[in-house]
Order: sequence, then structure tokens, then C-alpha cells
Amino acid sequence: MSSIIDRQTIDFLLFDVFGVSDLCGQGRYEDHDRTSLTAVLDLAQKLSEETLWPHATLSDTQEPELCEGEVRILPQARAALGVLSRAGFFSAHADFDAGGMQLPVTINHACNGMMKAANVSTHAYMSLTRAAGNLLYAHGTETQKRLFLQPMLEGRFFGTMCLSEPDAGSSLADIRTRAALRDDRTYAISGSKMWISGGDHDAAENIVHLVLARLPDAPAGVRGISLFAVPKVLVNDDGSLGERNGIAVAGLNHKMGYRGTSNCLLAFGETTPAIGTLVGKENEGLAAMFHMMNEARISVGIGGAMLASAGYRFSLNYAKERRQGRSLSMRDPQTPPVALIRHPDVRRMLLRQKAFSEGGIALCLFAGVLVDRRTVTQDDEERARLDALLDLLTPVVKAWPSEFGLEANREAIQILGGYGYSREFPVERLYRDNRLNMIHEGTNGIQALDLLGRKVLGKTSVGMNLLFEEIRQTLSSARQRPELHDNCATLERMLDEVKNATVLIGARVEAEGKDRALAHASPFLNAFGHMIVAWLWLRVADAAIGVRAKYEENRGFLEGKLAACRYFYDHELPVAEAWLSVSYIDPTAVADTEDESF
Amino acid sequence: MSSIIDRQTIDFLLFDVFGVSDLCGQGRYEDHDRTSLTAVLDLAQKLSEETLWPHATLSDTQEPELCEGEVRILPQARAALGVLSRAGFFSAHADFDAGGMQLPVTINHACNGMMKAANVSTHAYMSLTRAAGNLLYAHGTETQKRLFLQPMLEGRFFGTMCLSEPDAGSSLADIRTRAALRDDRTYAISGSKMWISGGDHDAAENIVHLVLARLPDAPAGVRGISLFAVPKVLVNDDGSLGERNGIAVAGLNHKMGYRGTSNCLLAFGETTPAIGTLVGKENEGLAAMFHMMNEARISVGIGGAMLASAGYRFSLNYAKERRQGRSLSMRDPQTPPVALIRHPDVRRMLLRQKAFSEGGIALCLFAGVLVDRRTVTQDDEERARLDALLDLLTPVVKAWPSEFGLEANREAIQILGGYGYSREFPVERLYRDNRLNMIHEGTNGIQALDLLGRKVLGKTSVGMNLLFEEIRQTLSSARQRPELHDNCATLERMLDEVKNATVLIGARVEAEGKDRALAHASPFLNAFGHMIVAWLWLRVADAAIGVRAKYEENRGFLEGKLAACRYFYDHELPVAEAWLSVSYIDPTAVADTEDESF
Repeated sequence: MSSIIDRQTIDFLLFDVFGVSDLCGQGRYEDHDRTSLTAVLDLAQKLSEETLWPHATLSDTQEPELCEGEVRILPQARAALGVLSRAGFFSAHADFDAGGMQLPVTINHACNGMMKAANVSTHAYMSLTRAAGNLLYAHGTETQKRLFLQPMLEGRFFGTMCLSEPDAGSSLADIRTRAALRDDRTYAISGSKMWISGGDHDAAENIVHLVLARLPDAPAGVRGISLFAVPKVLVNDDGSLGERNGIAVAGLNHKMGYRGTSNCLLAFGETTPAIGTLVGKENEGLAAMFHMMNEARISVGIGGAMLASAGYRFSLNYAKERRQGRSLSMRDPQTPPVALIRHPDVRRMLLRQKAFSEGGIALCLFAGVLVDRRTVTQDDEERARLDALLDLLTPVVKAWPSEFGLEANREAIQILGGYGYSREFPVERLYRDNRLNMIHEGTNGIQALDLLGRKVLGKTSVGMNLLFEEIRQTLSSARQRPELHDNCATLERMLDEVKNATVLIGARVEAEGKDRALAHASPFLNAFGHMIVAWLWLRVADAAIGVRAKYEENRGFLEGKLAACRYFYDHELPVAEAWLSVSYIDPTAVADTEDESF
Repeated sequence: MSSIIDRQTIDFLLFDVFGVSDLCGQGRYEDHDRTSLTAVLDLAQKLSEETLWPHATLSDTQEPELCEGEVRILPQARAALGVLSRAGFFSAHADFDAGGMQLPVTINHACNGMMKAANVSTHAYMSLTRAAGNLLYAHGTETQKRLFLQPMLEGRFFGTMCLSEPDAGSSLADIRTRAALRDDRTYAISGSKMWISGGDHDAAENIVHLVLARLPDAPAGVRGISLFAVPKVLVNDDGSLGERNGIAVAGLNHKMGYRGTSNCLLAFGETTPAIGTLVGKENEGLAAMFHMMNEARISVGIGGAMLASAGYRFSLNYAKERRQGRSLSMRDPQTPPVALIRHPDVRRMLLRQKAFSEGGIALCLFAGVLVDRRTVTQDDEERARLDALLDLLTPVVKAWPSEFGLEANREAIQILGGYGYSREFPVERLYRDNRLNMIHEGTNGIQALDLLGRKVLGKTSVGMNLLFEEIRQTLSSARQRPELHDNCATLERMLDEVKNATVLIGARVEAEGKDRALAHASPFLNAFGHMIVAWLWLRVADAAIGVRAKYEENRGFLEGKLAACRYFYDHELPVAEAWLSVSYIDPTAVADTEDESF
């Protein structure tokens, strides 16, 4: 089973490429060292393999059920969440004071990634709880922290994020759920929330819903949205559970994948009042939520990349073991069949998966490193710069691994052929699970508009400049390696092409307005992501050459990094240049076609 | 519901672009005219909408079950197959003499395509029966035709193709099923066959399995494979059913999609003998099978394209009806939300689906036209030329629509967002169903090797020359249209690039052997397919301009063809040029990476 988790690559990225050990001993992470981080990674891997993976198929086939108004999930998933909670993973990210491990965000993402690779459906309950908890940590009152956050860190209460409504998916400006102030300063929440992952289940004592809603006199649009904590069961001031709150499960959504995670339509305050308390300030709910969405978006990215990695590892093992056919130059049927991995087209599909999945993991871990650098820095200016870079990268970190991770999973199925299409093997499930990542936490189309419209063409270019600075640092090191000369030249050309495309699209926005000019946002995001991943592959290759002498016994492993880098530059980057070239054309067909002509 | 079938486009392609009416009145089709063909198309559409579509979701959720050794399928699917049989669709392609409609192959594909769009799982039983019947028609004895083919045409017996085995999927050279001659000139078949679609069910009186197996003294490899007709129930010489034959259902495969089509592991001759009769000559089974596989491959292609079209039509309707968000230049939350189709990124995804799905349909119908032209021609030389062109195109017709049809279905899900990912809407099922098309009837990787290794770089270039001749005809007409000037120039450049890439890869085959040189076969196939589809879009646009004056009331429809053509040239063709550019590089990473480095 360990075949689906590539721990060696994760460790190489964390410690050899991104130097996560350097964070240790600084500020919040001063009590950590490589040994302590490795122990946590070991534990996460062990739980992934032994606790999460064994029921991954069952999670897919035995979906949550709605029985008498309550959702019941797979007993094995409930049990596994108990194990994760006892092992401290619900609070791994939290401060020591709160009973947490005060773990660097990067390590956290690595641990979560392994768990997602093993069983994304079960892990989601914990992941959502931590995201909701983080929001309460940043914006909650002391009472909310005591009554809700603390039991969430202990894994006794779970949490959800309630944004979407049946008539407002991506468009939060139009949400209709209402909050009315009551005499006791609590609020009565009424309305429907759709697509609520973990919206109900029987795996926790209580569920704390963080709900976006409007106050009666709130301004229209996103500036009139407030955030409320609305528990499934009311909590008394001494922390004991009180009465059931007025939240009903109006329906379960049945999904293509991620089937083990219950997904609910929730009705608030339909028959009895749903009582909540305000989190943060009135009408500032969306800003609070979005602050946390950035973390959630990195988490989606790592999911996309790690599901891709799981499919890669599975199909790689299969390709090494399964013997079928012969080489094109040796067709003699008397010779024994060769392993699938000997066929060039299979090797191409394997390298494609490797380049996309490991490139995606590198991208997400790099984003984690930025968050951690931000946490430990004493320098306000540095912190602002890191914020700008993170802000720029977040849409890419969410969208790129979900888009190309899915592509990788498609190849994994293809390598297994008929077996890959059968539910007896996990690769088709990984593909179905991964398909969600392009949709949730803001569709990739929304991310593309955010990247191009707000970040790249936005008022400041601090983020872009910082990114190019980081890239130039890698280039100046990589240029010393003769094996990487060609790649350096290609990356430099790519940087220029991205800059040129940006200038051109910027001019078009000025001349023709955003609607027309941003029609190319999605291919731009994909190309921009390819450029960043190309840079990260160069950085990985540079690091691999750097440690080659030290790790003589891992020569094969390190050569694999160079091969995947070469593959990505040779086979995939030309396509990114084509996407950029599309930016130069006037999007006539997209912008000018009448609706009736579609 | 008619929203998922785009009959107007199908008719436009058949009659205005490819002039299928011209076939009428000639040879085999002399009794047909546009009116008779339209009546068949109308009937196929009606049955698709009223008989097949209503149980498509149920087919997906209530899978075939194995009960006491027999497979039971959904009663609605059984009933629908009875309706199709009574309407004459099991024999629509057959001669009048055999009770058929003597329908042009092109019309046949159009009818099948509509049925696949509506319910690919149920349609598969008929499709497989017809393919098996065609094989008996071409290679069977008179007795086999009387006892097996005739009841298949009547829809009383169904058929299957038994090629794959548990240890030999794509590699037919290694099949192990054996056939031993018995005293009565029949054969005892023994061995296992895997992935047998329609391998068992309760929808017909009998199932005729066409089985590839080896005779005891057969040469090794593909030259030692013979073909046998092995019925589920033995048939007496008077046509009445005899005893059960020795074929056991050893297991059902559970698939990602196509769930309504039973898929079996069959054990032949395990406890009682499985008795079959030879079809065609000894050791020539594979040639016979492959002759029919070409037809089956066009059928896979039309499936890929029509499932894409169904997803396109569904997501298009949704995008027109569902109002969400506002334009980028009008963010005032007081204004009402706009329809999804007003968002540029949604329009891009719609046009992408339109270009891929309608382009794929055009490609498959064009292949059908070539078959029909071959049927009616009196000229042996012309027939040989058409054979060469069909031979060249078949791998593209199979692979391109399955690859890019899937891509289209991915966009359909994305347009619906969370709803698209939910099983309450059909787009995720279409995507799952379509994922098979890249795998069955020869994986797309196998098609790519066939195209590049055998067809493009093969001994003669007759097919390529004919293709370029067809393209030049379109170019000389399209060049007269000012609106198409740019596209003509682009297509000419693309033709040159394909030729150059071919020469280069040919030189590499000479210098380095096939294994290394054909590492680029898959991107080459995709690029080659894009070139052909670009040509077909130009042909469609040229035809649309040609009839614009005639069809004033359909101006919006015709403008849509021009828009999709423009979209394909502007947004998608640059990527194909990038794939071709990859052909120029030495495939170092793919060819030279050690297995341990993956």
C-alpha cells in the first residue's frame, strides 16, 4: 500500500529543495527540528496507510445515508476520525497552549496531503473542522473559542463552512440567508445552504456551522454579509450540550466522487429557530471567510496534486509488474511479453503524471513555505512582500494542481486499460474524487479571473516582482549546471512571454474593458501555472544535482527528478507557450457570438 | 429532452456539408432518397428521446446483477431493446433481402450516434450484436448465417466479440484460449475471456459469442489465431434452441461508467464443453476480426463525439437558463444576476465543447461517407483509394473524438459547477461513460502507434495523398470566402507542419528504430486529428456561408458554425502546433530514463 504515498519525494521537497529545517528554531517553530517534524510525518504516513487507506473503497461504495433526519456515515470512517483525533491531528497546526503541535504550515500540508492521497473523503471531515476552527481562532470571541474552538481542536466537535445557496454558488453577492438579532444578542438564522460538505454526520458530538448571512439593514452585495457560528446542538456556558438547534438536513447530494463526505442541503430556522452568534464584525463576514479561504485553497491544491501522485504511484507499480506486448522492434511472439513500463507510450504517460503530480506538490509546499516564512519573520516589510506573493500565487496553487492533477489521473486509468476503468482498482475513484477540486473553494474559472483581473493586472506589481526575483535566484544557481542550460534559457523565454502577454492583456483591458479582455483568463492561468511549475522543476533539478554526491545510493531517485524536469520542459511547456500565444488574439468567437448561435 | 440531441447540426452535416443525398439513387442505395433517410433519422431520434433517454440514469444506478450464474439487466433496458428490434434497428444496415433497410453507413452512424447520446449503455447491446452480425455476414458459412445471423438481425439473438483475456488486453498475440477439433467438425473451446461487453444478460433468447482462440498446431502470435462462433445456447439445425453450451459467467466487472452494459469474465469449457464452429479460415481469425474492428472504431468515435454533444447541449441549456453573477464591468449587486452564458469564461467552455463535439461528429460522418462511397463506386481504383484513406483515418476517427469528447464533457461539468458534479444531473454520467471510449476497441495509445507507425510512415502514401487532395478541394472553395482567408492560411501552414513532422519522424525511425522514434505517437495523433478537424470545420464554415442566403431563417444557426470554426482555429489549433513541435525533439526523457527513476 505504501506504493501510493511517495514519502521520499515529499521529504526531498521539504528538506532538500525548500529547506524547511531552516524554519525550525525560529519564532513560532523554535521548538521544532528535523527530527520532530519527521516524527510527525512518519505518524501521518502510518495513519494514512493503516487507518485511512483500508476503507477508501468502502467510503466510495457505502455512501452517507439520511435516516430520520440524521446523516450516518461509514463506521470505519467514524473510527478513523477518532484515531486522527487521538493522534492529535485535529490540532496539529494549533499552538502548544491550545494543546496543538504548533506545526509549520508546510509540514501540515504534507501530512494532510498524504492523508488525502489515502482517503480524501474521510480526511475532509477533519480538514473542514480545522478550517472552521482557524476562522474562529482569528475572528471568534473568547466565548466562541472556549465553547466551540477548543472541542474542535480536540476532535469532539466538527465544523463546516456554509457559503453556497441553491441560487448562489459562485456568486456570494446574492446570498439570501438572513440573520435577525434577538433580545439576548444572539441571532436567528433563516435560509438554505447548499453543497455543505460534512453538513451532517454521526462522527462528532456536535457540528459548528460557520454561516454567511445578511442582517436586516445590510447593504446589498458582498459588503452586506456577516458571519455566524451556528452549532447543530446548542452549547451551554459550561460547555455541556443543550438542546438541538433549528437546523434540518433538507437533502443529501449524491456526487460523482468524494462520496464518503456527506454533502447536504441544510435548512436553517425552518420549524424552530436556528440560533447563532456573530463571528467578527457585522457586514465583514466575507473578508473573514476569505482570509481563511486562502488556506483552504492551498489545501485543495495539495489534494489535486496528491490524488494525482497516488494514481501515479499505483499505475507505476502496475506498469512495472504487468507484462504485456512486446517492443516495436521485437515482435517475435515466441519472446516473453515485456513489462508495460517498457512501452514508450506508457513511459510518456508515467512521466506526464510524475511531472504534473510532483510539480503540483512542489507548488503547494512552496506556498506553505511562504506562509511559514511570513509567520517567523520579524520584518514587517518582508511580511508584506510575502503576503503579496502569496496573494498572487493562491489562485494558481488552487487551480493548477486540480486541473493537471486530474489530467494525471486520466493517464493512470489509461495505463491500466480496462482494469483502470473498473471499480476493482482505485485509479478511477481517484479520478472521480479529483474532479471536485476544479470546482470547490471557487471554481477554476473564478481563480483565473482572480489571477489575471485582480492580481496580475491589479494595482501593484509587488507580487509579480517578488515571484520573478525568486525565479531569478533559481536561474542564477541553475545556470551553473551544464545539464540545465537549455532549461534555463527556455524558462527565461517563458518569463518574457508571460510579461508580454500581461502587458498586452492589460492594454486590452484599458481599451476594451474587462469583459472582453479577460476572456483569455483560463488559458492564461494554465500558462502562468506552467511557468511557475517549470521554475519549480528547475529548482528541484538544481537541488537534485546539488545533493547527488551526498546521496550516492539514491542516484536513481535523483535522476528521476532530472528526467521529469526534462520531460516537462520538452513535452509540456510548448503547450503553455501556445496558450500564451492565444492571449494575443482578439477573442472574437468568445465575445461576439450571439447566444442563439451556440 | 430533445435538448441533448442536436438534430439540426446532424442534418446540416449529412445533407449540406457531405451531400449524403448524392449517394441516394446509386447502387446499393438506389431505393433511398432524402425523404426516406429523414424518416429513419426521425424514428431514431424519437426512439432515442422517448425509449432510451428515460432510463439512462436508472441504467447507471441499477447495474446488471449476477443471479445464480445468469446476468439480469434493467427491465427498462430489456424493453427498450425490444422496441429497437421491432422498429428494425437491429437490421437497419442489412440488405432488403435479409429484412434490413439497406441504409447508408453514414445514416446508420447518425442514428446510432443519437441513440448513444441518449443511452449508450442500452444501445451497446444492439451495437455489439450488429458488429458480430456483420462479421458473420462477411465470413460466416451459410449455416452460421441461417442459424445465427438471421435471428441477430431480428433482434432475437444478441452477439459479442470475445478478444481480450485476463492476461492479454491489447496484446492479442498472447491469447491462450484453445480450440480443439471434435469428431463432428465442431470445436471445443476452452479458456477465459475478459471485458466481454454484453457477455451475458436476459434480453435475448440467445447470445452468439465470436471468440478468438488457437488451434493446437497454430503458429505463435497473431498469425495463429482463429475465430469461432460459440452460442450461449446450442442451436438445432431447424433453428430451435437446444442445450446450454459450456459457457459460464465467472464474474461481472464493475465499471466507472457504461454501467448498464454488462461486462463479464467468461469461462469457456470449464465444466462442460463449449462447442463452437469455425468462422472464416483457420489462423485467419484476427484479419477477419480487424476487418470489422474498423467499423467498430468508427462507432466508438461517434460515441465519443455524441456523448460530448449531449453534454454540450445540456450545459448550453443550463447556461441559458441559470442566472448567476454579473458581468465584470457591472458589479452593482442591485442589478439582477445575468445568465451564465453571459460570462466570457462560460462562453469559452461552451464554444470549446461545440468545436470538439461537432468537429468529432463531422469526422465520424465523413468516415461513414467514405465507406458509402466505397460501396456505391463501380471503379476498382477509386475503391482502393477510398480504402487507403479510410485505413489512414480509422485510428484518428476512433481516438480523436474519444479524447476531445471527454475534454468537452469535463467542461460541461464545470459549467454546472457543484450541480455538474452531482449525480442528480446527467453531465457527470456522460463524462464517466465517455471515459471508456479512449480504452475499448484498441486503446488510444495503440491507435497512435497504428497511425504513425503503420499508416503515416507505412509503405505507401496513397492515403495521405488522398487526404491532402480532399483538403485542397476544400481550400480552393474556402479561399473564395473573405471571412475564411485567415483560416485557409492557417490550415495550409498546419499541413506543412504535419508533413515536416512526418518526414522528421520517418528519418528518426530509419536512424534510431521505431521504439525511440514513435515515443511521440500520441501527441502526433492528437495534432494530426486537430488538423483534420480544422479542415472539417473549414468545410462546415464554407458550406454554412454557401447556404446562408438559402436559409435566412437559420442565420443564427449558421453563424454558430462560423463562430465554432473561428474558435477552433484561434484557441485550439495553436496547441496542436505545439504538439507537432514536440515531434522535433529527441524523446530523451521518455526513452532514456531508467525504470528505477520513475
